Amino acid sequence: MVEPFDTVDLIHRKRDGGALDAAQIRWLVDAYTRGYVADEQMSAFTMAVFLNGMSPDEIRELTLAMVASGERLDFSGVGKPTTDKHSTGGVGDKITLPLAPLVASFGVAVPQLSGRGLGHTGGTLDKLESIPGWRARLSNEEFLTQLGSVGAVVCAAGADLAPADGKLYALRDITGTVESIPLIASSIMSKKIAEGTASLVLDVKFGSGAFMKDPARARELAETMVRLGNDAGVATRALLTDMNVPLGLAIGNANEVRESVEVLAGGGPSDVVELTVALAREMLELAGRPDADVEAALADGRAMDSWRAMIAAQGGDPDAPLPTPRESHTVRAETDGVLATQDALSFGVAAWRLGAGRARKEDPVVHAAGIDLHAKPGDEVRAGDPLFTLHADDPARFARALESLDGAYTVAPAGTRIPARPLVAARIR
Amino acid sequence: MVEPFDTVDLIHRKRDGGALDAAQIRWLVDAYTRGYVADEQMSAFTMAVFLNGMSPDEIRELTLAMVASGERLDFSGVGKPTTDKHSTGGVGDKITLPLAPLVASFGVAVPQLSGRGLGHTGGTLDKLESIPGWRARLSNEEFLTQLGSVGAVVCAAGADLAPADGKLYALRDITGTVESIPLIASSIMSKKIAEGTASLVLDVKFGSGAFMKDPARARELAETMVRLGNDAGVATRALLTDMNVPLGLAIGNANEVRESVEVLAGGGPSDVVELTVALAREMLELAGRPDADVEAALADGRAMDSWRAMIAAQGGDPDAPLPTPRESHTVRAETDGVLATQDALSFGVAAWRLGAGRARKEDPVVHAAGIDLHAKPGDEVRAGDPLFTLHADDPARFARALESLDGAYTVAPAGTRIPARPLVAARIR
Repeated sequence: MVEPFDTVDLIHRKRDGGALDAAQIRWLVDAYTRGYVADEQMSAFTMAVFLNGMSPDEIRELTLAMVASGERLDFSGVGKPTTDKHSTGGVGDKITLPLAPLVASFGVAVPQLSGRGLGHTGGTLDKLESIPGWRARLSNEEFLTQLGSVGAVVCAAGADLAPADGKLYALRDITGTVESIPLIASSIMSKKIAEGTASLVLDVKFGSGAFMKDPARARELAETMVRLGNDAGVATRALLTDMNVPLGLAIGNANEVRESVEVLAGGGPSDVVELTVALAREMLELAGRPDADVEAALADGRAMDSWRAMIAAQGGDPDAPLPTPRESHTVRAETDGVLATQDALSFGVAAWRLGAGRARKEDPVVHAAGIDLHAKPGDEVRAGDPLFTLHADDPARFARALESLDGAYTVAPAGTRIPARPLVAARIR
Repeated sequence: MVEPFDTVDLIHRKRDGGALDAAQIRWLVDAYTRGYVADEQMSAFTMAVFLNGMSPDEIRELTLAMVASGERLDFSGVGKPTTDKHSTGGVGDKITLPLAPLVASFGVAVPQLSGRGLGHTGGTLDKLESIPGWRARLSNEEFLTQLGSVGAVVCAAGADLAPADGKLYALRDITGTVESIPLIASSIMSKKIAEGTASLVLDVKFGSGAFMKDPARARELAETMVRLGNDAGVATRALLTDMNVPLGLAIGNANEVRESVEVLAGGGPSDVVELTVALAREMLELAGRPDADVEAALADGRAMDSWRAMIAAQGGDPDAPLPTPRESHTVRAETDGVLATQDALSFGVAAWRLGAGRARKEDPVVHAAGIDLHAKPGDEVRAGDPLFTLHADDPARFARALESLDGAYTVAPAGTRIPARPLVAARIR
């Protein structure tokens, strides 16, 4: 076939600060997907995008071209409104676990296609795989059946959704072009648009444990994604949330499932409850259920019933004991005082080094590894009180985990007032 | 082996506007040469260099690292001073052909490792291969022997000289990062430093037919390369020369050899003679022969004798007839007047389309293809006078060549004064 564009010309255009038009972007993504444009060329192009940016039109065309590179799911036969949530990733972020069954308990379908963790942020599928028997991979038929019956499905995204994004993301990961708003926004939104959900709530995090450290950049990312979603016919909103401190008291896999079940039982740490409720309200409003009483569903067991049905439908035993760690190591306060800081990134890296996360895609995770926090910033502690407990299969892992926690938490003199930071900093629609 | 650096960290550093230190650059080039750093990663890195630049220290370290990636020749046993010339490439640039034997006629060794043409600028080896029997590839022993006897050698550079540069150049070519001063300067100078010449004169061209259109950018490139050479112990100078108009009257391969022989016989177009003499003077001064009478050597046959010896030593027959074109097409003036413009790039592209150049590395060139100019800017012409003649093996090629010449030359009313531009715009040392 005669190609309508020259790859090097398109790279030059972006390199020299210009914009590509719709036909050029569509061709580039298509030619890359079929292997005509080489990985080396796409690497140079994405670095040029990283440094020179993309206009809103270019970002939209890039997103739609990635959607068009694969199949697009259709939930019109499910007979329920559909809504989904996506988080940009954080430390202790297990919100999907209580959130999906909670929202589904109101008769709404939540088709949650999730990923695995890489680096210091955990993956939802890794956490759920702590549950004996639970499986992440469903056939298309199983997926649609469960969506119709239980309503909530958390499973692995197939390779047929936005394959261009999968190929491009793997490349960006090794070539240093991950933290680019046009590239992140188009990557996330192409998958979500192809997934076929009618509405979407984004949890865009900022701060130490987040991908975007800077709140202004996180807001820009959120606004870009909300516009992309709405332009493509997916009713989209975003919450901008603080990720300077780990979410909840559990960081890991099995312990995060345990904490999620506490929330579904009407308890759990207040920050996890607050964010679960805030996101559920947004999703239910978009799904046409603005009056749903979310707190009641957590308190009266409806959300828990929905959770049990969701786990059982994917082969899991909701009553089976979760894996427990072989080795634990508790760190205690040396003086009386107030816990002043607890750095999300450091705790995320420590949990990762304990075996809760993976360094390479092909590595397994240790489901019982992780960290349990016993205090949060603002809590009073006395000398000898436990601050946190590390869990691992091999005690040799404690030393490197503790290294990353050096300076990651501080105890201030008793009586010091630690100002509380709002968890939800903004709502973008 | 444990690698001392993380590739993505180094890409991030350059991406974010920082500088790499000597150890980092040396490792990156070495790891790329042995395949640990992937082509995709180097593509992203070079795009970051293109957009964020490199400090003089970084450029020096990059150059030295590429020199260190292969062998370095040693001419200390040749028993003559060595000097070399490098041109950044232009249209009709056959200067190496008369220059190398001219300089060698003064007892100086000229180890001229050359390349082949790609795109609209011709390659010295392609031109010389028009001569029946002449071969570009010499063994190391043949090369050193000829350097000691004849003095002038024009041959293909072995793959062992700066292999990192060869690998990187091929990558830059397909990823749109060719026109970067740090990358061009380090590429050219790494080959020349590895080649082992004691002194070097650079012909850095600017204008339409040159790689660098802008004289200021060409000067920056020249200054960067002169500093790199001198820092590495190679006495280096540069001439900044005008490439808005083709050099001489012949553009192609066999016809450029013919024109070179005219110069060696004491004739030839004045611009080719002027540049040959200017470069020869610089080279001879650096080689310790500041009083060499260059014009005399062209006039009295010494340069021609040196040429015949050089061609014969590489298997060529200096008396054999050169290939002649199967088809020719002459374009004539439509009105009386003065030839006002003759765009170098357009004529270069036309010659390339006629078959004188190659689109892909593996393509052959047609030695008899090209263009003979019958007038230069400033010359008076009468209606019906030939302006230029196209040569090709296949008349079907004329149409596309003429397309690229549309608007490339203009005839102004008789009596119009066309200001002459100095060929050598500056001398940098």
